[in-house]
Amino acid sequence: MANSKYEYVKAFERENYLLPETYIVIRVDGKGFHKFSQHYNFAKPNDLQALQVMNAAALEIMKRYSDVQLAYGDSDEYSFLLRRKCDLYERREMKLCTLFASLMATFYTLFWNKAHPERPIELEQVPTFDARAVSYPSFEIVRDYFSWRQVDCHINNLYNTTFWGLVKKGMTPQEAEQRLSGTVSSDKNEILFKDCGVNYNNEPEIYKKGTILVREFDEYKSEATPVTAVSSRQRQKQDKLRRKARIEKVHVDIINNNPWWDARPWLRE
Amino acid sequence: MANSKYEYVKAFERENYLLPETYIVIRVDGKGFHKFSQHYNFAKPNDLQALQVMNAAALEIMKRYSDVQLAYGDSDEYSFLLRRKCDLYERREMKLCTLFASLMATFYTLFWNKAHPERPIELEQVPTFDARAVSYPSFEIVRDYFSWRQVDCHINNLYNTTFWGLVKKGMTPQEAEQRLSGTVSSDKNEILFKDCGVNYNNEPEIYKKGTILVREFDEYKSEATPVTAVSSRQRQKQDKLRRKARIEKVHVDIINNNPWWDARPWLRE
Amino acid sequence: MANSKYEYVKAFERENYLLPETYIVIRVDGKGFHKFSQHYNFAKPNDLQALQVMNAAALEIMKRYSDVQLAYGDSDEYSFLLRRKCDLYERREMKLCTLFASLMATFYTLFWNKAHPERPIELEQVPTFDARAVSYPSFEIVRDYFSWRQVDCHINNLYNTTFWGLVKKGMTPQEAEQRLSGTVSSDKNEILFKDCGVNYNNEPEIYKKGTILVREFDEYKSEATPVTAVSSRQRQKQDKLRRKARIEKVHVDIINNNPWWDARPWLRE
Amino acid sequence: MANSKYEYVKAFERENYLLPETYIVIRVDGKGFHKFSQHYNFAKPNDLQALQVMNAAALEIMKRYSDVQLAYGDSDEYSFLLRRKCDLYERREMKLCTLFASLMATFYTLFWNKAHPERPIELEQVPTFDARAVSYPSFEIVRDYFSWRQVDCHINNLYNTTFWGLVKKGMTPQEAEQRLSGTVSSDKNEILFKDCGVNYNNEPEIYKKGTILVREFDEYKSEATPVTAVSSRQRQKQDKLRRKARIEKVHVDIINNNPWWDARPWLRE
Repeated sequence: MANSKYEYVKAFERENYLLPETYIVIRVDGKGFHKFSQHYNFAKPNDLQALQVMNAAALEIMKRYSDVQLAYGDSDEYSFLLRRKCDLYERREMKLCTLFASLMATFYTLFWNKAHPERPIELEQVPTFDARAVSYPSFEIVRDYFSWRQVDCHINNLYNTTFWGLVKKGMTPQEAEQRLSGTVSSDKNEILFKDCGVNYNNEPEIYKKGTILVREFDEYKSEATPVTAVSSRQRQKQDKLRRKARIEKVHVDIINNNPWWDARPWLRE
Repeated sequence: MANSKYEYVKAFERENYLLPETYIVIRVDGKGFHKFSQHYNFAKPNDLQALQVMNAAALEIMKRYSDVQLAYGDSDEYSFLLRRKCDLYERREMKLCTLFASLMATFYTLFWNKAHPERPIELEQVPTFDARAVSYPSFEIVRDYFSWRQVDCHINNLYNTTFWGLVKKGMTPQEAEQRLSGTVSSDKNEILFKDCGVNYNNEPEIYKKGTILVREFDEYKSEATPVTAVSSRQRQKQDKLRRKARIEKVHVDIINNNPWWDARPWLRE
Repeated sequence: MANSKYEYVKAFERENYLLPETYIVIRVDGKGFHKFSQHYNFAKPNDLQALQVMNAAALEIMKRYSDVQLAYGDSDEYSFLLRRKCDLYERREMKLCTLFASLMATFYTLFWNKAHPERPIELEQVPTFDARAVSYPSFEIVRDYFSWRQVDCHINNLYNTTFWGLVKKGMTPQEAEQRLSGTVSSDKNEILFKDCGVNYNNEPEIYKKGTILVREFDEYKSEATPVTAVSSRQRQKQDKLRRKARIEKVHVDIINNNPWWDARPWLRE
Repeated sequence: MANSKYEYVKAFERENYLLPETYIVIRVDGKGFHKFSQHYNFAKPNDLQALQVMNAAALEIMKRYSDVQLAYGDSDEYSFLLRRKCDLYERREMKLCTLFASLMATFYTLFWNKAHPERPIELEQVPTFDARAVSYPSFEIVRDYFSWRQVDCHINNLYNTTFWGLVKKGMTPQEAEQRLSGTVSSDKNEILFKDCGVNYNNEPEIYKKGTILVREFDEYKSEATPVTAVSSRQRQKQDKLRRKARIEKVHVDIINNNPWWDARPWLRE
């Protein structure tokens, strides 16, 4: 019906299909959240409610896409792990990334307004997310990816906790920055303890570890799945199982080859 | 600060930079809007308020990005034209597309809730957008692109207007579909007139033509801009001019080499 | 030294880096070899000397690039397996493919002229190759890739052997084609045996199986190599070992999970 | 016929189609030609016979592909301009680049052996080429591309001529390099004249300007060709004209908007 002589312009469109049989990580990342956090008066160094809004938004995405086996979030970013055999939107990179960014933005807005009826999202400062997809060929590298994000969370949180601890004790931001310049982790722990009276170990796990959303199966039967031979009926059955699996929210260490990973063989499959 | 032995996973990231010196069109497209329109009881064949929400959202994006010279919207989609020399986010395709999709989703949500306090956006049915970017090497093809979208708008609107006209006259959707099967434009115009008493020409322009948002300059001085030699000061000055230019909303014919285009030489530059 | 105001044109160049930690297969493929084989009077269905020229050219490439662990050739094509950790030309797809195509063409020309001093390569009909690179994320898929090529060799060779057998017995090409239309493997074996007096099993292995070039290590010590931590000294040592490994030429069955693969663990690493 | 359960491996192949309606430049570049030139005792600073081998090889490519309107070569590289509407191999980047690299290598080998029967190409040192394709959206940038290459030729040739002039006068390479360090063009011209008795202006044009191969039409009728509407019959007719056009070899200045370009409007079309 909608044919016209102008339709040739479609020939300029390009599509990138992510390599089959690789794990896909989609990372959504808040744009300009430093300004955003100032505009809405985030608590420092961590705003628990804002983190919960992120977590609620990510959980909604995970509920909608059963291919997402795991998600890890911290600060204004979230990484979603799509299983190796995922064929969502034929693995079209642009489709996947724009939808995840779009959903994150809407859910964030809705959950924020629900949590903060007194300071709802305003037009001049809206939550905005970019997204990217990365293909990882092996599960070892996937674990390293999430290790990378969790180590990053730890490093940033230790710095921010110490920095704001010093500021709350009366230092100017410049003085605090200078005090921390060149320090390593153990120095920061000690500064925090001695100068601010804070034992970093007692800080809330959600700040130190970030948040992990993971699909959990009570009875998981590992299936040897050759590359080619899964019937569409089996696929539907497996998909249904994934949809029914409950999604848990935890704040635990998943760095490196932590047994946590091996206890969840479905993440690998 | 944030270095760790896991950082090597970044080497798997890929970036696509859109070809320099080409016009970029970013098209955002509603996902599952058929269902969305049912959930929120859209008027048929066109819901004026929903179109105005789209237009308001697109306008907000255009205000934020002065590189957008023109936008065209119809139904649940919007196409944004970024000027040939645009260097927004270094022309990174993924960054541009995810941000536009993300902004469209949030603005849609906010404007919707403002327009419909009685039926606000609900978690189970949120407005979602995908997006894609296309590079066009010449202005002639850019015009053909927008002609394609406006012809598409016309064809769809004529069909929908006639279809719903027949349904409102008592046909079942199946009967209406059958009645229209194999008809050309002139047939539909006649059916509409004879069976439904509607003169298509008198239908609102926003339905027949879609919506054009265009940056307008009162005094425009075309500048011969060689590929290489624009000073950063000139660039800033031009950017400021674009920011200050008013954005007009019109519903006119822009198909093919309509003089409308030539009257706006800045679109070409 | 070579800077000029025109150098900005380099910004239009694009580079594709093949995904790290995946196996790379580069397949070079003769262009228009049907015509080429007619021009130089190839024997039918197989020209042993032409196959040997292909094998000699592929061997030269394999000698030059120690990252090539395995190569498989048949007819006018050759597939080279580059190891998973290969960093040749930073895994730039275009560089790899154009060099392999270029080398194949020159070596083919030189070996041909050596083998056929009486009918050297002529300007109007030169051996030409295209090439493509494919990334495979797991070793199982790599084996399937080579299985695909070897099954293809078998299917084509059985058909061609029967076709030319019938033609040599006096059929026209059209008659032979018709005779074979709709036949399966067992039919062709029988036709070959009854009509042409040829037992397919006795055909030369090089025709039935194609040619495998494989790097062989007498004493191979598998090393657990984590993704990140191989010193450059270790890398050099391993590279030296690969260079010194002898390259064997065999014509054996490598389809599926043949033990042949497991006996060569270095192919996987 | 050739279907097997292994054929799924084809799904991992990726194809890049160069953007329609852009000019394509394919640049082939000798690999390791410094070593190559030593092995075969090239004359310094320029080996006329080697340049003629390059030119002959490029000419053969141009004869085969009527889409090539222009080629420019210098030293061990050649750039081929494919017309904007070229649809050769559906504009598949990899196909185009590997074929051009492959053809360049074979033709170089054949023309070299013809020119130097006394020192034919040897297996241990074969001419090898990589290739890349670049899309340029406008003709102005295409001209700048060729300006870039010709300026580069000039800069390199002036340096090399002076360097080897000094060496021939008795300097060591180190001394010559030091003498030229920090000098600009006018300095080199003067050194060449005073120290070596050479007037750079009198040097052969082929060294100073490189070589241009251009398709010439005696009676060229510019046709307004809209993007969409060229009949296949017209296309065949135009293609035939291009095939019949003679190819000229010249060594002239084509830098910037030299009238040379405007005198050949078919290059733009």
